[in-house]
Amino acid sequence: MTQPFNHRLRSEIDRKNSRLVLGLDLDPDRKSKLHGGGLVSLKTAAREIVAATADQVCAYKLNFAFFERFGSAGWQWLEELSQFIGDKALIIGDAKRGDIGNSASNYAHAILNNLNMDAATVNPYMGRDSLEPFISDPAKGAFVLALTSNPGANDFQFITENVPLHRRVARWAQSLNRHDNLGLVVGATHPEYLDNIRADAPDLPLLIPGVGAQGGSLAPAVNAGTPAAPTIINVSRGALYAGDGALEDIVDAVAFYNNKIRELE
Amino acid sequence: MTQPFNHRLRSEIDRKNSRLVLGLDLDPDRKSKLHGGGLVSLKTAAREIVAATADQVCAYKLNFAFFERFGSAGWQWLEELSQFIGDKALIIGDAKRGDIGNSASNYAHAILNNLNMDAATVNPYMGRDSLEPFISDPAKGAFVLALTSNPGANDFQFITENVPLHRRVARWAQSLNRHDNLGLVVGATHPEYLDNIRADAPDLPLLIPGVGAQGGSLAPAVNAGTPAAPTIINVSRGALYAGDGALEDIVDAVAFYNNKIRELE
Repeated sequence: MTQPFNHRLRSEIDRKNSRLVLGLDLDPDRKSKLHGGGLVSLKTAAREIVAATADQVCAYKLNFAFFERFGSAGWQWLEELSQFIGDKALIIGDAKRGDIGNSASNYAHAILNNLNMDAATVNPYMGRDSLEPFISDPAKGAFVLALTSNPGANDFQFITENVPLHRRVARWAQSLNRHDNLGLVVGATHPEYLDNIRADAPDLPLLIPGVGAQGGSLAPAVNAGTPAAPTIINVSRGALYAGDGALEDIVDAVAFYNNKIRELE
Repeated sequence: MTQPFNHRLRSEIDRKNSRLVLGLDLDPDRKSKLHGGGLVSLKTAAREIVAATADQVCAYKLNFAFFERFGSAGWQWLEELSQFIGDKALIIGDAKRGDIGNSASNYAHAILNNLNMDAATVNPYMGRDSLEPFISDPAKGAFVLALTSNPGANDFQFITENVPLHRRVARWAQSLNRHDNLGLVVGATHPEYLDNIRADAPDLPLLIPGVGAQGGSLAPAVNAGTPAAPTIINVSRGALYAGDGALEDIVDAVAFYNNKIRELE
């Protein structure tokens, strides 16, 4: 039977006598003797680095940002590189994902199953259900962001004062809206807080998910909009799987929600 | 000259007389009349839905989890679908990314430039520098997660008590470690807080990034480890671009860090 991830980690540390993780953040904008910046060159470089260091590190950390930069070709690289590393060391997928349960399951599946990585980094902001899919298989692990080292860590991570974090987020986004291009995601299941958020962020459009299948209340969401800072309402499953899920059902559902919103304006 | 994103959003709302966003979260596990769950079928379905609804919605929301589930093929789908939507409506890349500056720049580039989406959802947890690359081009926008509608939203988003959020995160992860497969990311630039985090999460391994190029302090990080809950130390640029960045330089740097850590144990 496979051991829990933290046990596997300890074993790998023992086996290599190494607590070192190597982050394979090859930067196409920064050429070196090993690579010229192009994708083919980076791929070769990564393999060469792994082959040369695998007995020296307990894990590789693959920061998805450096792969997604290349789009689908970058994801192919993730696939190839994960396979190449194989059992040479543990692989930590540094994807910092965090999303509601079903989406988190998809992310976890992509990272831990399809890419067959051993662990992922997870953003805690959305709470428990965004983490659970990453840790439901004991053999796979998650590293939850706790205290990060970037300058922005001070914005929220030391928060202690008597204001709800979400209001702090709203005020913060409002204060950064100097290009008039920021908005907020506000769940429609919390209509009682919309007035506060609206007051905190009077200039920001509000993207409201959760209407429809998630049963959010539509009226307060629509009413929180202003001409300069409208609310926009998202529907997903509520339209895509309306009725039998046939095309005409979807079109009908879209029209239905549109009309409902218009009536409330 | 291109208008700021929020202006473009308002224009699109006016043009369509619609504040509706359609989330194209096609679920392969949930077949419908429109699709049988396979990728080819989902692709066709998405195009058909867009063609049939584009004049009814101000934006499409593409939740990356539903695409990444298919790996690089899913990213090809993202590319194809974004191109297909084109100017028919705005595209919100619901990727919920959040990472330190340079990684955030790569994510923003992938979403806003390569995929040519109009906006992205961004996780606020890591603060300002994780958001900036998404809003530096006024024509592109960001929706910052403020109050989400999932059950886990209660874990952090209403936090008001007199404990730093990062200690709360550490205690929370510790309490969820029932499979012995959770760990914490703790920046090496905050050595003075390591003791508290260690006390808050005695059973969790600590992944320490930021050693090397970011100048974090190595000794406290190593010392915070225990046999059952070790610290593991990440290095990325500090090794990859050591010396001339030649392969032997990298191998040497890896050995150097390994030795440094071993000396501190």
